[in-house]
Amino acid sequence: MALEVVSTARSFGGVQGVYRHDSRETGTPMTFSVFVPPQAERGPRPVVWYLSGLTCTHANVTEKGQFQRACAELGLILVAPDTSPRGEGVPDDPAYDFGQGAGFYVDATREPWAANFRMESYIVSELPGLVAAEFPVDMARQGITGHSMGGHGALTLALKNPGRWKSVSAFAPIASPMRCPWGEKALSGYLGEDRSAWCRYDATALLEDGARLPELLVDQGEADTFLEDQLKPHLLAQACEAAGVPLTLRLQPGYDHSYWFVSTFMADHLAWHAERLA
Amino acid sequence: MALEVVSTARSFGGVQGVYRHDSRETGTPMTFSVFVPPQAERGPRPVVWYLSGLTCTHANVTEKGQFQRACAELGLILVAPDTSPRGEGVPDDPAYDFGQGAGFYVDATREPWAANFRMESYIVSELPGLVAAEFPVDMARQGITGHSMGGHGALTLALKNPGRWKSVSAFAPIASPMRCPWGEKALSGYLGEDRSAWCRYDATALLEDGARLPELLVDQGEADTFLEDQLKPHLLAQACEAAGVPLTLRLQPGYDHSYWFVSTFMADHLAWHAERLA
Repeated sequence: MALEVVSTARSFGGVQGVYRHDSRETGTPMTFSVFVPPQAERGPRPVVWYLSGLTCTHANVTEKGQFQRACAELGLILVAPDTSPRGEGVPDDPAYDFGQGAGFYVDATREPWAANFRMESYIVSELPGLVAAEFPVDMARQGITGHSMGGHGALTLALKNPGRWKSVSAFAPIASPMRCPWGEKALSGYLGEDRSAWCRYDATALLEDGARLPELLVDQGEADTFLEDQLKPHLLAQACEAAGVPLTLRLQPGYDHSYWFVSTFMADHLAWHAERLA
Repeated sequence: MALEVVSTARSFGGVQGVYRHDSRETGTPMTFSVFVPPQAERGPRPVVWYLSGLTCTHANVTEKGQFQRACAELGLILVAPDTSPRGEGVPDDPAYDFGQGAGFYVDATREPWAANFRMESYIVSELPGLVAAEFPVDMARQGITGHSMGGHGALTLALKNPGRWKSVSAFAPIASPMRCPWGEKALSGYLGEDRSAWCRYDATALLEDGARLPELLVDQGEADTFLEDQLKPHLLAQACEAAGVPLTLRLQPGYDHSYWFVSTFMADHLAWHAERLA
């Protein structure tokens, strides 16, 4: 087995596991979690990928996302990767919004990041190959979602790989990294100053450039302190409208940017995915 | 307000908060969490107390217990206290199963513990007074539950205060601390070597001594590594049978001692409490 089993535990009739492997893309050990629902004992199940936000590892959503009950009811596998390579030999930055914990789901082209920070290739190619080989996954039925920086990842990867993920949703995504401080810092750091290279990693720009999704569910807390400066869902809404992409954008009064927000609407998102992956 | 608000967040339509206050019983600041469901906007709601296990603070169950959805559906307030006094001036022990994080819900009589380790009085008197004053709680409708050391706490406090908690349940409780290594170490440390003083803090002994509960729900994972040496639910079952206390003891195949076990059966326990607190 290419996987090291970090831990497994029975949860809601299924198994919540944490695994580690040596990644060829990042050149580091990478840790991720997989929830396998009880229905998988009878055959392969659809899978939802969950991409996490700044500072997170697989552990945040695994412990705080409250997805296990819904996955067990709906028969969904959920995979939660880490957000970046990590370790002593890996470049880092003292800020929380760049370097380790802040991979932004790009393949970096600028030094010193280019060697390890290959999160796009890791999420699109390497980890799915491993998951397909090791877990009872129906790879013809994949959905993707994510939170904040991970919402940006889910949207951009889905827009760039049409048909790969049949269902797409996001929690409080960074809707246009090219037009917010988090994204400008990350994209210039990983890709350099030429903004034309950034468009491949901006959901709004990708939609403006012709990329399409069949439809999209987005939840956004109205009390999210990052809403105005960093997240800007109205840019995504405008681009979806212009592109004719059906967007369900739900503004949730009183909710902030934390996992209290994510966990509250997690079951809704998983039901949305399950319906489209049926 | 006697409370410092550490944090609040909207969660499942209610509010998950964390609070701190200066405790007269422990002589330290104490932190606890309260979930208030949306129904509380219309009037006081029943409350379930959740007592945590060894090494835990309020945070473990708050973040990993997955109780918010069920509490929001059932209209229950849930209060999660810390497991001991903490801080630099507070006595401690290097072991995980004694000292800070391991209060065992006793009022210690032995030095150096007696001054701060007054968790029985804190849970039975001080914190309920504060909660009643500050939250929309119907104090005539209280339930209690807990996990492991906290299951021991829930059972013993309920047995010693008849009628105070109308519904009682436990997850993998330490059923007879007098007859397991965790309990022998803690009770001798906090109370001294005279075992007759320990009986007030042993659910099985309290039942044998005439204390009663109206009924009891206990879940226990069969793959729990502490089952045989520390938890011993068969001792509780024997004492309940001899005492005529209706016990629903559910042995759950494959489940361990972690919050993956607690969270899986949390909604069942809360429904049990809600029915009895209706």
